[in-house]
Amino acid sequence: VVAGAAAAARAGTRCVVFGPLSEIERSLGAQRPRGLELVDAPDSIANDDEPARAARSMTGASVVQAAQAVTVGRAEAMVSAGSTGGTLAASLLHVKRMQGVFRPAIAVPLPLPGGTVVLLDAGANVEVRPEHLVQFAHMGAAFSERVLGVDRPRVGLLSVGEEAGKGTETVVEAHRRLSGGGLEFAGNVEGDDLPQAAVDVVVTDGFTGNVALKLMEGTSRSLTGAIAQAARSGPLSALGGLLLKPKLSKLRDRIDPERVGGAYLLGLRRLVVICHGRSSRRAIENAIGLAARGVEQRVVERTAEALAASGALRGAREEVPDQASRASASADSLELPR
Amino acid sequence: VVAGAAAAARAGTRCVVFGPLSEIERSLGAQRPRGLELVDAPDSIANDDEPARAARSMTGASVVQAAQAVTVGRAEAMVSAGSTGGTLAASLLHVKRMQGVFRPAIAVPLPLPGGTVVLLDAGANVEVRPEHLVQFAHMGAAFSERVLGVDRPRVGLLSVGEEAGKGTETVVEAHRRLSGGGLEFAGNVEGDDLPQAAVDVVVTDGFTGNVALKLMEGTSRSLTGAIAQAARSGPLSALGGLLLKPKLSKLRDRIDPERVGGAYLLGLRRLVVICHGRSSRRAIENAIGLAARGVEQRVVERTAEALAASGALRGAREEVPDQASRASASADSLELPR
Repeated sequence: VVAGAAAAARAGTRCVVFGPLSEIERSLGAQRPRGLELVDAPDSIANDDEPARAARSMTGASVVQAAQAVTVGRAEAMVSAGSTGGTLAASLLHVKRMQGVFRPAIAVPLPLPGGTVVLLDAGANVEVRPEHLVQFAHMGAAFSERVLGVDRPRVGLLSVGEEAGKGTETVVEAHRRLSGGGLEFAGNVEGDDLPQAAVDVVVTDGFTGNVALKLMEGTSRSLTGAIAQAARSGPLSALGGLLLKPKLSKLRDRIDPERVGGAYLLGLRRLVVICHGRSSRRAIENAIGLAARGVEQRVVERTAEALAASGALRGAREEVPDQASRASASADSLELPR
Repeated sequence: VVAGAAAAARAGTRCVVFGPLSEIERSLGAQRPRGLELVDAPDSIANDDEPARAARSMTGASVVQAAQAVTVGRAEAMVSAGSTGGTLAASLLHVKRMQGVFRPAIAVPLPLPGGTVVLLDAGANVEVRPEHLVQFAHMGAAFSERVLGVDRPRVGLLSVGEEAGKGTETVVEAHRRLSGGGLEFAGNVEGDDLPQAAVDVVVTDGFTGNVALKLMEGTSRSLTGAIAQAARSGPLSALGGLLLKPKLSKLRDRIDPERVGGAYLLGLRRLVVICHGRSSRRAIENAIGLAARGVEQRVVERTAEALAASGALRGAREEVPDQASRASASADSLELPR
């Protein structure tokens, strides 16, 4: 995290790093780029802490201090590679939801061979109501259009069949409401439509979305691992693997999630980016870049405008503990496909 | 379907084919293997029919006649590549659930690089209660042990984090009940544990399971497509691809779902195998082989014994229409990974 922030600062993005000061200074060593500010935060919310309680009681925790810094305007966006539950709880408590947003959602831009697909929710809400899915659809479309530059993004609702009547009661009702809305609603999409980038935005609950995200990562990893093993299993295969390598490296770079670095937590009053708990220096640097671009492109304001125009806003009713406690355990469990 | 049944009959498995007689005879041509019986069934349940109603009213439909044939003992197992909802509805109506089983589940044996994993439910129940998941766990374990020959199969519950408290209320409660049971319960598993074959049986609801199955298929297909394209993009890459081909073909054969051909619908009084709607001749032949092996290995009886021993049986309470109508649309939408 420190190395990634230092690299981002050297590249011109001013960063404040919250964490145990002595450790940060040790890992920085003699170098200390301009534009890198350090704030001591010896505590951190662990993966097995109850997130909402921890965010309230551990006022000195790094993610809590960072959320407060964003709230008071000392920083314009927060980037966290800590526990997803902790980041979500601190964000709900301090940064707060946009007026009229039921639940923030994790929106992951997936770099796929066929294009970039925004998947949301990727793990912030394990249980949802139809009106949540409708808001996710509008937030995802706003993000795709305003940040990724997709013209009239097509939005699909993840289900088990393309017919309007297929899926859970919640999905069927969300389908009904989205069919009448102002979106380019493509109807239900199925599991195999996601990797094929059949639509620009895929909407689902945080349980299915989290499983889907990790499954795509795991399938890619297990398949490329098996191919690499095949390529090592004999001299001719090894030569073949060597000859293919430049093209495969290009493909791998194109679909490398570290190129994106993180996912937006949409629906908050300020920008929050969530990173994988195992993020490399490069992923952190890119996630900071994602946050900086999000501020420049006014993602929060534009999402709010799009939501207001959609008529999907309502009075916020949810409580903090409900959402954060059963969310995916940690940034470690928010896997991004490799 | 006809070619697959003819091949199975030639290989020694007696088959009764239900379908439009003139079409069947046309596709058989002059050949008519011994052990292949034909029954005229001009009707069939379409993907957009309401399954439960269609199964009741279309008494001459092929899947309804086949289910009746199994019920009265004229055949020992049913193999269907038709609409999943129709197959499920006809099975619930005629074959009927085992005493004490809440809901049948689609159990897919997934051939993965790391081993075979049984995933259930893959689409029969879009909404479940904790007691359903508990039964799925026991049915899946019985199947893995008795049919696939796995000693003390490890069973995982699909969720968004490994901690017992992560997931929906239903998953958290199922975790609690399974923790005390007699299974080798591995606790929660996450999306990336599935392709890595971290456990022998993965239990989930039919919504998540159906999305997961199609997602794995889609990810494999999109990745292998992108690799094949890379291998065609220049002379050196093409040579590399050619040299790697024998090893990759071996890998592809090992993880080819057509090698298995179908999925068991577990929890019924007789054996039912569901195939992909796009099954090839070879897949149908293998699915018939899967059904025949299931009869020989007494899958139904052994699943019933294992369920009885588990204490997970209860009085059956569900209605037919509930389950079949919102199930995954069709065998076409029951994708098997390629």
